[in-house]
This record gives sequence, C-alpha cells and structure tokens, in this order.
Amino acid sequence: MSAGQGPQDGPGFADLGFARVDTAREARQGLPEVVYGPGKTAAEVTAIVQRLLTANTGPVLVTRVDAGTAGEVLGEVPGGRWDEAARLLVWRPAPAGEFRLCVVSAGTSDGPVAAEAAAVASAVGLRVEVIRDVGVAGLHRLLAVAGELRRADAVIVVAGMEGALASAVGGLVAAPVVAVPTSTGYGASLEGVTALLAMLSSCAAGLTVVNIDSGFSAAMAAFRLARATRRPL
Amino acid sequence: MSAGQGPQDGPGFADLGFARVDTAREARQGLPEVVYGPGKTAAEVTAIVQRLLTANTGPVLVTRVDAGTAGEVLGEVPGGRWDEAARLLVWRPAPAGEFRLCVVSAGTSDGPVAAEAAAVASAVGLRVEVIRDVGVAGLHRLLAVAGELRRADAVIVVAGMEGALASAVGGLVAAPVVAVPTSTGYGASLEGVTALLAMLSSCAAGLTVVNIDSGFSAAMAAFRLARATRRPL
Amino acid sequence: MSAGQGPQDGPGFADLGFARVDTAREARQGLPEVVYGPGKTAAEVTAIVQRLLTANTGPVLVTRVDAGTAGEVLGEVPGGRWDEAARLLVWRPAPAGEFRLCVVSAGTSDGPVAAEAAAVASAVGLRVEVIRDVGVAGLHRLLAVAGELRRADAVIVVAGMEGALASAVGGLVAAPVVAVPTSTGYGASLEGVTALLAMLSSCAAGLTVVNIDSGFSAAMAAFRLARATRRPL
Amino acid sequence: MSAGQGPQDGPGFADLGFARVDTAREARQGLPEVVYGPGKTAAEVTAIVQRLLTANTGPVLVTRVDAGTAGEVLGEVPGGRWDEAARLLVWRPAPAGEFRLCVVSAGTSDGPVAAEAAAVASAVGLRVEVIRDVGVAGLHRLLAVAGELRRADAVIVVAGMEGALASAVGGLVAAPVVAVPTSTGYGASLEGVTALLAMLSSCAAGLTVVNIDSGFSAAMAAFRLARATRRPL
Amino acid sequence: MSAGQGPQDGPGFADLGFARVDTAREARQGLPEVVYGPGKTAAEVTAIVQRLLTANTGPVLVTRVDAGTAGEVLGEVPGGRWDEAARLLVWRPAPAGEFRLCVVSAGTSDGPVAAEAAAVASAVGLRVEVIRDVGVAGLHRLLAVAGELRRADAVIVVAGMEGALASAVGGLVAAPVVAVPTSTGYGASLEGVTALLAMLSSCAAGLTVVNIDSGFSAAMAAFRLARATRRPL
Amino acid sequence: MSAGQGPQDGPGFADLGFARVDTAREARQGLPEVVYGPGKTAAEVTAIVQRLLTANTGPVLVTRVDAGTAGEVLGEVPGGRWDEAARLLVWRPAPAGEFRLCVVSAGTSDGPVAAEAAAVASAVGLRVEVIRDVGVAGLHRLLAVAGELRRADAVIVVAGMEGALASAVGGLVAAPVVAVPTSTGYGASLEGVTALLAMLSSCAAGLTVVNIDSGFSAAMAAFRLARATRRPL
Amino acid sequence: MSAGQGPQDGPGFADLGFARVDTAREARQGLPEVVYGPGKTAAEVTAIVQRLLTANTGPVLVTRVDAGTAGEVLGEVPGGRWDEAARLLVWRPAPAGEFRLCVVSAGTSDGPVAAEAAAVASAVGLRVEVIRDVGVAGLHRLLAVAGELRRADAVIVVAGMEGALASAVGGLVAAPVVAVPTSTGYGASLEGVTALLAMLSSCAAGLTVVNIDSGFSAAMAAFRLARATRRPL
Amino acid sequence: MSAGQGPQDGPGFADLGFARVDTAREARQGLPEVVYGPGKTAAEVTAIVQRLLTANTGPVLVTRVDAGTAGEVLGEVPGGRWDEAARLLVWRPAPAGEFRLCVVSAGTSDGPVAAEAAAVASAVGLRVEVIRDVGVAGLHRLLAVAGELRRADAVIVVAGMEGALASAVGGLVAAPVVAVPTSTGYGASLEGVTALLAMLSSCAAGLTVVNIDSGFSAAMAAFRLARATRRPL
Repeated sequence: MSAGQGPQDGPGFADLGFARVDTAREARQGLPEVVYGPGKTAAEVTAIVQRLLTANTGPVLVTRVDAGTAGEVLGEVPGGRWDEAARLLVWRPAPAGEFRLCVVSAGTSDGPVAAEAAAVASAVGLRVEVIRDVGVAGLHRLLAVAGELRRADAVIVVAGMEGALASAVGGLVAAPVVAVPTSTGYGASLEGVTALLAMLSSCAAGLTVVNIDSGFSAAMAAFRLARATRRPL
Repeated sequence: MSAGQGPQDGPGFADLGFARVDTAREARQGLPEVVYGPGKTAAEVTAIVQRLLTANTGPVLVTRVDAGTAGEVLGEVPGGRWDEAARLLVWRPAPAGEFRLCVVSAGTSDGPVAAEAAAVASAVGLRVEVIRDVGVAGLHRLLAVAGELRRADAVIVVAGMEGALASAVGGLVAAPVVAVPTSTGYGASLEGVTALLAMLSSCAAGLTVVNIDSGFSAAMAAFRLARATRRPL
Repeated sequence: MSAGQGPQDGPGFADLGFARVDTAREARQGLPEVVYGPGKTAAEVTAIVQRLLTANTGPVLVTRVDAGTAGEVLGEVPGGRWDEAARLLVWRPAPAGEFRLCVVSAGTSDGPVAAEAAAVASAVGLRVEVIRDVGVAGLHRLLAVAGELRRADAVIVVAGMEGALASAVGGLVAAPVVAVPTSTGYGASLEGVTALLAMLSSCAAGLTVVNIDSGFSAAMAAFRLARATRRPL
Repeated sequence: MSAGQGPQDGPGFADLGFARVDTAREARQGLPEVVYGPGKTAAEVTAIVQRLLTANTGPVLVTRVDAGTAGEVLGEVPGGRWDEAARLLVWRPAPAGEFRLCVVSAGTSDGPVAAEAAAVASAVGLRVEVIRDVGVAGLHRLLAVAGELRRADAVIVVAGMEGALASAVGGLVAAPVVAVPTSTGYGASLEGVTALLAMLSSCAAGLTVVNIDSGFSAAMAAFRLARATRRPL
Repeated sequence: MSAGQGPQDGPGFADLGFARVDTAREARQGLPEVVYGPGKTAAEVTAIVQRLLTANTGPVLVTRVDAGTAGEVLGEVPGGRWDEAARLLVWRPAPAGEFRLCVVSAGTSDGPVAAEAAAVASAVGLRVEVIRDVGVAGLHRLLAVAGELRRADAVIVVAGMEGALASAVGGLVAAPVVAVPTSTGYGASLEGVTALLAMLSSCAAGLTVVNIDSGFSAAMAAFRLARATRRPL
Repeated sequence: MSAGQGPQDGPGFADLGFARVDTAREARQGLPEVVYGPGKTAAEVTAIVQRLLTANTGPVLVTRVDAGTAGEVLGEVPGGRWDEAARLLVWRPAPAGEFRLCVVSAGTSDGPVAAEAAAVASAVGLRVEVIRDVGVAGLHRLLAVAGELRRADAVIVVAGMEGALASAVGGLVAAPVVAVPTSTGYGASLEGVTALLAMLSSCAAGLTVVNIDSGFSAAMAAFRLARATRRPL
Repeated sequence: MSAGQGPQDGPGFADLGFARVDTAREARQGLPEVVYGPGKTAAEVTAIVQRLLTANTGPVLVTRVDAGTAGEVLGEVPGGRWDEAARLLVWRPAPAGEFRLCVVSAGTSDGPVAAEAAAVASAVGLRVEVIRDVGVAGLHRLLAVAGELRRADAVIVVAGMEGALASAVGGLVAAPVVAVPTSTGYGASLEGVTALLAMLSSCAAGLTVVNIDSGFSAAMAAFRLARATRRPL
Repeated sequence: MSAGQGPQDGPGFADLGFARVDTAREARQGLPEVVYGPGKTAAEVTAIVQRLLTANTGPVLVTRVDAGTAGEVLGEVPGGRWDEAARLLVWRPAPAGEFRLCVVSAGTSDGPVAAEAAAVASAVGLRVEVIRDVGVAGLHRLLAVAGELRRADAVIVVAGMEGALASAVGGLVAAPVVAVPTSTGYGASLEGVTALLAMLSSCAAGLTVVNIDSGFSAAMAAFRLARATRRPL
C-alpha cells in the first residue's frame, strides 16, 4: 500500500477513519478541499493535510487554527506557514495572478474576519488589497478610497453592527461585491444576524452575502469568480 | 352639566364610556392627546375630537384615518382638514414656528410614513422640509442634499429594507436624528424588523429610533425637542 | 427646459417630485437603474421609464409588474415587452452575449422566481439556460444535468423548503453559484427563512446568497460577474 | 425492607427522594428507563442505576456522562462499561439482533452525536454500522455508500450546518430515516436550529426528525421501530 | 413517440416542460412520487397524474386539492376519488394490508390534518384507525383508549397548541410514534411552532416529529416503517 | 338509548363522532367544558351545547362566536344569550356571587378582550367591574381608580403594546393579578408577543400571565381562585 | 436621625444611595419588599436587609444568594437562615397558616426551581407540600399523586422541556394552577422558551404562567391568592 | 512628518494602519470621535487617543475600558481620568453648561448603564443629575421625583426587564425622553430584547430608543439635542 492510498479509500475520496477526505475536489473545482480547524486535534489535522498534499498539487489550507495546534502541525508537516491574524495554515500558496480583489472593512473590530478573507484569497492566487476602518458614519473616508474600490475586479465588504457599508460600496462600484456580516456589536446587533439581514435587504442591486464572520466563504466566492474570468490566477 | 364635562369625569380626564380622554395632556406636555384612528368608529372619533376641542386650545389630531371615516367626522366636526397622503385629520393646526425639521426618506415606498411624519410635525408647529428618495445605493443623491440636511435643527430619517440611510445621515449632520424604520421590502427585511435592528445598531453615535412605520412617533419626538430648544413654535 | 431635464434635477439624478431617479447609474455600473414596480401607479412607472429611456442608452426594466399596470404603461411607452411568468417589463433588451448563465430550480413552485432571474439576466445580455424541477430527493435528476451545469459560466440555484439543491450544485460545479431561497413550503419553512439560513450555512464553499424570492438580485449579481469577465455581453 | 423496594415506592415507580424512578417502563416499552446524566451527582446516578438494575432485567444506560462521574459510578456499580466517544455508561447490553441500523454523518464535527446514536442503539440490541463524513458538497462520497445505506433496515442521518444530507439520503433509500440536526456550524447555523428547520422542511417524503444533538432520541426511535418489525433484537 | 415517453425524458424521469416527474421513485422507494397540489393548475395536475399512472403500477396521489381542481382533474382522468376532509385525490389505492396504524388527534380543530394522515396512509395500504379529540386536559379520555393505542403497530399523534398529547402517548405505547404539530391555536401557539418545539423537546424517548400540519409526511413515515416490517401491505 | 347518552360514549365523555365531549369536567372542576367556537359549524356547536346542557347543571358557554353562528345556534337551542362585544354564547348563567373581580384595560383597542374576560367571568358567577382606557402614559387616570382596584378580590389587567399597565397595577394592589397581553399595536409590538414578554418580565412580584388576547383564560383563572376562596359564587 | 430613617428618605421609601427601598410595600401588599440577590455585594445586601427589618415587621427574604454572600450577610445580620437548595436567605419567617400549596415538578433537573418556590412560599406562611419527578412520560406517576394534588388549595407546576405536566395537572385539579417553565433541556427547548410558550398555549383552561425559572414569582402569586382567600396565613 | 500627520493620512482622517481615525468629526459634529474600547489593545487605544488629542481641541473619550487597560493608557497619555463605574476614560472634559439632563434608572442592576450615560454626558458638557432605583412596582417612588424629572431639559430612562419606567416617565414629562433598555433580567427578558421592544411599543408619544445597554448612545443623543437648543454647553 502506497503512502497516498488507504485501505478503505473509494473513488475520489480517502478514508482516514475519522474523516473521509474529498481528493477529487481539486479536479472538480480547481482547489483542494480546505480543512476547517475547530474540533480537530493536531494529529487529525496533520493526517488530513498530509493526505491532501499527496493527492493534490495546489495550495492546502486549514482555517481557524490557534497558535498551539499550528505549531504542532507545522512541526510534523514542514513547508507550511501560519498567519496569526487570519488564524490560517497554508502549504504551497499560489503565486499572485492578475485578478485584483479588494477587501474593505467597516471597523477595527472587523479586522480578524477581513484578515481571514484576505489571507485565504491570497493563498489561492488572488492579488489582494486591504482597506480598513471605512465606516459609513464618516462617508469621506469611503469616498477617499472610491478610486481603489472601482479599480478592483471584485470587492469583499466586511462589516458588523448595521452593515451599511455593503450598500454604500455596492452602489459605488460595478464589480461583483460579496458582503460578509460580522458578529461585531452588541444588543440589537444580535451577534451578526442584524448585519446579515441588512445586507440581504440591501437596496444596492446584485450584492451577494455569505455567512456571519466567514471571511473564508467570501474568499472562496472570489476564487470562483476569478476562475470564471479566465484570467491567469 | 356643561358640554365640556361628563357625569363620570375625573380630575384630568373625561370619561366617554368607551374611552377615557386625557384632558390634562395639553397642560402637562404642551399638546392635546392625539387620537389613534384604527379600531374606532366615526362616531367614537367624533365624540373624542369634540371633547378634545372643548377641553384644550391647541391642535387636535387623528392619525391613520381612511377617507370614509374622515368624511363622516369632518361632516360632524367642521373646521378640520384631512391629509390624504398622511391619512391625518387636523383641527386648529399651529402656525409654523422657527424650528426647522427635515424629513428625508430612502425610497418611494417609504413615502406614506414620511408624509405622516411631515404632516404631524407641521400640524404641531414645526417648519418642515421633505426630501424624498435618497437611497444610499447612489450616494451622490445624498451628498447633493447634505447642505439642506445640515441646516435643519433636527432630521427625521425614514427608511426600510436595510435602513442604511440613517447611519449615513447620522454621520453627516450634528443635529438630533430620529430614525423611523419602515416595513418596505420583503423576505429578509422581515416587515421592518431588519431596518429597526440595523438603525439601533448604527455606528453613527447619538441616533435614536422609534417604532416601525411610526412617522407619528418621530414627529412627536421632534415636537418634544423643538419645545426643549425654547424657540418659538 | 428640454424633455430630458427637470427643474429640480441635480448632478446625476432627475427629480420627478415623487421620485429621484439615479441617471448616473448606467455610467457608474453599466446598467440603468431598474424600477421596482410594487407600490407605484402606472402613471409613476410611465414617468420613470420615460426619463430612464431618455437619460440612458441601455435596457430599461421594471420588475414585479402585474398585467393591468403593464398594459397601461406599454400603452404610454411603446417598444416594451411584458414577460408574464417573470412579471417583467423590458425596453431595449441587450442582445445575448457570450456569458452563459444556468438557472436551475428545485421544484415547480419555485418557477416564478426562476423565471424572474432568467428574464432579467436575459434582458441585460446574458445567455441563459433554464433547468426546472431538479429536487435533491431524486439525485439522478440532478446528476442527469451535471454536464449542463458544469458548462455554465455561472449558476443561479433557486430553491425553497430546505434549499438543499444549493449545496449539491455548489459541490458539483467550479463556477460562481448564487443561491436564491424561495418562500415555497409551509410550517417550518418559515416563508423562506429556513432555505435562506440553510444556504448561508452550506457546506459547499464559496456559495453566495441573495434575499428570499429575489430572482432579480441573483440576476444582477450574475450581471456584475459577467461584466467582470470582460467577455462581450 | 428489601433492597429492591423503598418506603415511599408506589405502583410502578420507586421513590428515591430526589427522584422517582419509573420501574414499569421495561414492562410497558421493552426497555428500562434511560438515565439523563447532566445535573446529577455520581451518588445520585449510582442510586438510580442500582435501583434500575434490581427492578429490571434489560440493559441500563446513562447518557452524557463525563469521565469523572463515569469512574465514580463504575467503582460503585461493577459490570458496567463507559464509551468515551458517546459519553455513555452501559450495564447488561443486549446482544446484537437482526435489525440493521446505519448511522451516517455529514462531517467530522458531527462525530460525537453519531457516536451517541450508535452506542445507544448497539446497547439496546440493534446491529449498527457507522458511515462518517459524507457531506453533500461531494456527492460521490454519498453515492459510494448508497448500497450500504439501501441494505439497512433503518437509517439515522446526523448533520449540522444546512443538514442537506438528510434530504439526499431520504431520497435514496426506502427504509425509515430519522434525522438528527447537530449544533455544528456558526453564524446562520443558529446552533442547530437551521439544520432542524431544514430537515423538517425536507422535500424527501416521510423523513422524521428529533431534537438537536440528540443521538439518544434517534436511537430510541430506531429501537421502537426495530421492535415493531418483530424481528429478533 | 409512445404515450408514456416524452422527447426530453431522461433516465428515471419524465420532462413535462413545467415539471420533471421522478418516474423511478416507485422502483426506488416502493411508491410513485406523490404530487403536491398547491400552485399547480388542473391541467398541470392532470398531465402529471397521467404520466405517473402510465409509468408506475401503484397508487397515485395528489395532496391538498380543492374541490374545483379535483372535479376538473377527475373529469380528465377517470378512476380516481377525492376525499373532501383530507383534500386528497387517489387513483389505484392499495388494498389494506396487515400493518395497523392509529391516528390520534387532540382537538376537533386538528381534524383536517388527522384526516390527511389517515387518508394517505390508507391509500398506500395501511390499516388505519382514527381516534379524535383526546386532549390531555381530560386524561380519562386518553386512558379510555390506551388499549387501542397499544394494539397499533405505529401511532401518529396530531396536536396543536402545546402539543402535550405526543408526550403522553409516547409514554403509554412501545410502538413507533410520529408526532404532527398543527397550527391550531393563537397567540403564543405561534401558528404551530410552539407545538413543534414542544414535541421535539418531549420527555418521551424515541418520539419523532414531522413538519407543521403535514399529515402527509407522517403517513409517509408510517409507510416507510410498515415496509420495514416486511409484513404484507 | 336516551337523549343524554350516545352509542360510543365512554366513562366521563360523550362521543359525538366529530368531537369527544368531557362530561366529567363539571364534577372535576366545578364548571362544564367551555366550547371554543372557531372552526366549528353551527350544527356542531348546537350538538355539543345540547349534550353539555343535558349532562351538566351549570352554565354552558361558547366563546368567539360570530353573529351568524350565534343566531343559528340560538334558534336550535333556546334559552341562551349572545354577548356581541364578547362574542360569547351563554346558557344558564350563574347568579353573581360575592367574589369581586375588576377587569381593567389600557386602551380602547383592548376592549374586545376585556369584554370577553368580563362576560365569561360574569357568566360563571363572579361579580365583575370593568374599568376602561387606563394607559400608563397618563398615570393620573390610573391613580384615580386605585381605590376601586384595591377593593377587588382579584384583578385582570388587559393591555397591548408595551403592556406596562400590568406592572403598575401589580405594584398598587395586594390581590391576585392576572395579566392578558393583547395584539393591539404594530411593528415592534409583534402582535402581542412584546406585551406578553414584558408582562412575564414584570418587576411586580406575583403577577401571572395568560395567552395573548385570551380574555377567556384570564376569566377561568379568576374562576379557579374564586372557588379557592370558598366564598359563595 | 433614628436608625430607621436616612437623610434622603422620602414618603414610603428609604434612600440608601445605591438603592431606594420600598418601605411601604408591607403596608400596601402584606409583605416587605423581597431582595433580588444577583449583582449586589454582601455589603449592599446587608444594608438593605437591615433597613427592611427595621421598617417592617414581617418576613425579610433575599433570593438567589450564593453560599459566600449568604455567610457574610448572616455574619452581619443575625437571626437569618440560608436554604442551600433554594439559595434563599430568610429572617423572621411566617408560621405555617392554613393555605395548602402543592409544588409539583416534572424532572430531577427542575429541582432547584421547585425548591425556590417551596422555600419562598413557606417563608411567607403557606403550608407547602413538594412532589418531585412526575413526568408525563409515565402517567401512572402522576395519577398516583392525583389525590394529593386535588387536596391542595393551589398548585405550582414546575417543568422544563415540553412542559406538558402543566396541562395534565391543570386538567386534573380545580384549584388555581401556576405554571413555572424551566430552562431544563437542550436544543429545541430553547432555554425554557419552549416550555413557556407551551404552558401559555395549554388546552387546560385557567392555567396561569410566570417567567422562566422563577420559582419566586410563582410563590408570590400563591401568596397573593392565599391572602385573597382570607384564611389565616 | 509632524506628530499630527501620518504618511497615509487622507483628507479628514488619519491612517494609523490598524485604524482610520475620523479627524473631521469634531468640525462636523462638535465632538471628536469617541473610541470604543473592546477589542483594542492598550497600545492601540493609546495611539488613537494621542492622535485625537492632537487633531482636536475638545474632550476625548474611550468607552468600556477595564481597569488594566485604563492604567496602561493613562500611564502613556497623562491628563486623563478613569471612571470605574462607567468604565470610561476621559481627557479634556468639557465644563458643565446650562443644559440639564436627568438620568433615571429602574433598578440597582441598571446602575452601570446609567453610570455610562451620566459620565459620557457630563464629559461632553451637560449638567447631569442621576436618580436611581425608581421601579414602577412602587409608583410612589416615581411620583416623589416627578418634580425633578419635569425640571430637566431632557431625560434618559434606563430600565431592563419589562422597561415600563420609560412609558411612565414619557407620560409625566414634556421634555425629550431617550430610553435605554438594559439586559437586566432573565428568561423572558431575553437579554434586553423585551425591554427594547416594549420601549419601542410605548404608548407614551415621542419617546425614542437606543441600543440595549448603550448608555453611551443615549448620552450622545442628549449631546445632539443640547447643541440644538443653542444654549451654552
């Protein structure tokens, strides 16, 4: 039995006992399966990462990893890098292509989610620019970056509280806009549900929305549309 | 027994059997009790209005009145006027004072709520300007009226869907801003609950909020603060 | 005063009194402002459409229009066409470009929303294919169309009830997927909220979501990304 | 007073002061009362288990027990076994009968709930097979196990996030399907409520649902239907 | 082209243009696809029923059909029968088998849902007994039918308001119990959501639950488990 | 077979086919079962009332009956009376006893619920006083009736919107207070849910609450406690 | 200045700076104000208790006090007693009167709430009997205590999960029933909200409900009705 | 590069890398941007405060700061003061002007929120009076302070649980009233949502509401209206 195949593997997946890894994902969607870190031990993450590196040729990512787990896994699987702000582990990151993604966030508390979006997008080959702390309570801060926003091929808007930045950006630019509500705020912010509902109700036509705090999902949506443009990644 | 007093009246109220009218409201708060129309027959509205006109000297208002009821009541109690857009009946409106209120709305569907806010405020003596259809999806429409907004002594923002206009206006002006969420929209707008939660979660400091679709409440809040400025109403 | 300009117009908008039309939208985002029909009279729709046709060169659309209003408006503004299934009015539709959009729906009750998505996308120049009634309770129906789904440049998934089709499609294709939850279903379907939450929670990475029943929003999102590919529309 | 009877016992129950044990459950429903561990001290669990062992002849189970409590109780009441993954204490497990139950889970995070379902079902005499990590984002992983699913007499589906696996399995097999939503996921997953609502709204006819994270309830439902088949347990 | 096949049909489904009928359902799950009536015209229902009758040999059902549609369809497709209380259309009902199902309801307002459950179950070959109006506020009414409940091979409990009947029955019988919450009640009953949540939280182990008002789903769950018993249907 | 007994009657109940009437209720709880009108035909109400009159000696009530049904039933079962405001049908009302109940309501819109509470309580023998329109926005109206409130043996508070009257009354009187939230209000009033939650959260100790708009439940709670006082009803 | 009066005291209250104690409560409602422990320091509780003991003659209670705070306060204010299960501090408890209250709970986890209800009721002079662990999943346990329940002058029902015990007891007894939902359960139990809604929707007429986990409120409601019976407390 | 300007600063804002400070806020709204403490390190707070002190002349505030962070920041930026009860850091507080604000709270648990409102309002130049523990369950406590409330230019009402104090105060005074719901309470209080909804539904006309627990927002609303009165601050 070779290192790349287990006894219970089926067509397009590897059975590690505690997990069934989708080894056909890269062929099907252009990117290996991305590992969701929480709830997995360092040993489990290590085993999955090793299998993904063997079965694929592209970037391998693990999201939402804390420092301790990251250290253990990197000790076992060399060649990776841990991004502290994004809590992301990456092996074999893709070089930056031509697709320009702008990640813009509303407040300093939205920083970690924006960092995850930027780090994942960068690891899969997008050219990423980050603009921080552009709240609508001071519109001049938004208007000052309108040019940069308009030059992007796609924009990810990260905002909590009332999430109004998504509507404002959605009206300014023509490019695809993916909105990420965050759990920033308290009381009536309902841990991100208010921003989520507000973004879905936006008066800016053609805005799309992903799950609360999911910088990862927004980056993957951007990856899908970067591929759809058929420009080099 | 005079026309102004009933057999069951108590100190500060008039007992009409089906209703107990607060005749001390004008002395206590500067304005007679305002009648909420829905669920009352034309005869009941007529009786209450007659008693309020007798017991007070200021403007008498009935909100959310349809055309049929309005016609019947005006036939019985002359001297009143019905505002169709605002669905408001008014007797003895106050002359416009010095307090300038600006009512700004986000979309054409928010019109009836904005009309109620404007008509009530005008009837109680505020100097009202209305600006319609200033959605944040086209910020230039908002910036074009920034000067008018800044000249107002207070601003009422009427918006449904994601309600982002409240945050944008709240950041532009220094004056008190009262936000009215509307039930405009569908799906994730949750009949105004999303706009309500978004406005309460606004990043613009010092914004206050009233009930969904309640142009009346916003106007009354404006009346309270106009009185607090001690400028002639 | 020319026909194309009103007395109160500002930079980039036309003030019709009851509405403030964003005439700069086409220049900013590649498409004239789309009119939301509900709550507007035939006369109001007519006035807005006339102004939009004058101020822009591209397609002019009115969504959610019933037969009566459509007939009245078409009588005043010739050259338009009403799509009954989509309840859409269109003038100057764009010719079909190269971007292939596939609209796939889960059940027959999701038909009107899928029709709106398809009609709007087609009117703005996308090459649209519609696949109906592909519920996950019979996966063979989905697998039978996997080839067509994979050939599309983008996919819109329209589904109510539990909305599981979005996850299944999201895992099959590499292209951008926009999910539209519908209010199909009863009880625990909560008028589309369940499908909405389920799509946002999808295990298929990079799926994005728009408001409940909003075929229009999904089509506009597809328009944004079609433009981003820089292929002829 | 014998060990098997207390001074306050009534017909069909034993009064331990802090609890009233249903000693007639086995006669009525074929299985002794199962003890819910949380909120009970080791001494309380011990007393209840002792009484249940005396009053019945079948398997005695305690669910959701942590390692510490398990150790204490096993020290007092010999002959039991603690299943760490399932957090289950069992005395006198039933031998495996002829009824084949398949427990299938969507993601690795759903593991503990699947383990509880499997362990309880096994302890009461069902022949259990477990299939892990069959997410709908890679349908080939599901289709690869379709044969095993179809050979089962009943299937328990364990899934969090959008819970779409339940619909997919419900459409593949003819046997009874019990769906267990889990609290896996974040944001719009609403701690399992989204999966719960989605499963209840499933387009797969005849699916039934139990409480969030309740592997125990699903196993008990399977036990009821295994008995209904009148095949040896 | 024969009457039983259309030009666009694929493997296991028939494409009627407006619908894609799952013709493989009977082979896969022992019963032809059941048609959900609402939102379909009489002509559409007719076409689907004709195709299902041709492609299968078992009973063909249409749920939630009003009198008008039923009359039209029966005029086109002879041999069917409409059950007014259950609003169900049936062709080729299965003869009653050996599996005894008891449908018990809590109040007279729960009648239509109980009728749907009973009619569907009967049409697919279950031997059905109906017990009405057994509210827990008079436990003697429940205890009076305990014998009948215990003789059933499965029980469907239909209850609105607080849904407590499900727990009481679940504790009385050993057989599988499927609970159907109904939208009976007002205020805090939340149109069936309260009964739904209460049934899911039941202290009676092994109870399973289906969607609000879905007598159909409960009957289909009963059909699945009747088949699993391998007794003649 | 006598008129008072049917062929399927059991111990303590009468089986009318469509309903199972609890004929033991009067013996058990001092009052015949009360009939809930909605969803029952005039013929069904007639049959139930006839049976209740035969099987008991006390007052027979039907709640929430419209004028048409009331007329039909009274034509068949003489001796009854219909209270239009309360929508209540009564036969054999109890004479007023010594227990004094005060029903106090907050606004004119709460009138129908207060009327139901008062009419039911009066029909079962309580001595009822009604005080209308005592909103907390004019506390002097409440303080003016404090004496009457304090002389009552129990108080029912009927209020919608924010329901604050319940707390104010709860703090004023020592007697039992039953609060009835009403669906009066709009927007954030959430059809009575806000008043319900507010009353449950009241800072006035020992307040109890019944379902939204359920004047009937409050009256029955008052009946229970009037009986508990052992004073003549 | 005497020990019983502070410099800022007003009519009927004592101003301690951090709190304004209602010293008129005993005269108004027959019992001194009861102190809610959480969020107050031992020193604050001490000061309030001292003032209440001075200003009144009846029992003084502090609810929800942990062992540490209780010890400190008892050290400063002798003569009190701490009930560990109920987490209640009591000084000058009233002797048991003639009013018999039965507190019945559904499961062992509901114990602390039942203990609070019993301890508070006992401290204010009610004669309390406690019956534990009477779940509806074994109705014989409930029927075994029906006689005791029927002999009580009032019953408090404490239940979590689906809260069905309240309906069952409400139908068995004629006396006033106060239902206390508890936060026992998980998932669909929604931390007590499900039991709360279920109890409010109960089919047992005349049941009243208090806040989740509030044994205190139920006891105070019982105190109010015990006083209303005018039997010696 | 001077100390007051960074390399990336734009017009009206300072770019600190991790944050973009709105340096034009004071000119636009009469007060420098207020810093929200949570989620920021002491070093970040320090940098922002230094920049705000340089770029403006008015008071600089940081809200919700714990003791540790406060100590560190004060060590780096002398001249500030930390208010422990309000958890507020202030530099350059404004002298008390003529505008009289009354902050009134319902219970001792609402103290921290009232403290924040009072401290922020005082720091920006309002003349603040605080009245504590005025619950509506003892109306005499409220009536005792009616005179003080009526002398204020504006009133902030802080209340949790059912929030009824807002309605009572709103009816007593003519001045603007800003209501702050707090998360005080348990169960049906829903962590402040109940008080929030109740205040929005208040029958007292012209009440406005801010987010749960946001003493800060209420103070800022008061600051806006104090400025609008044009009386010296």
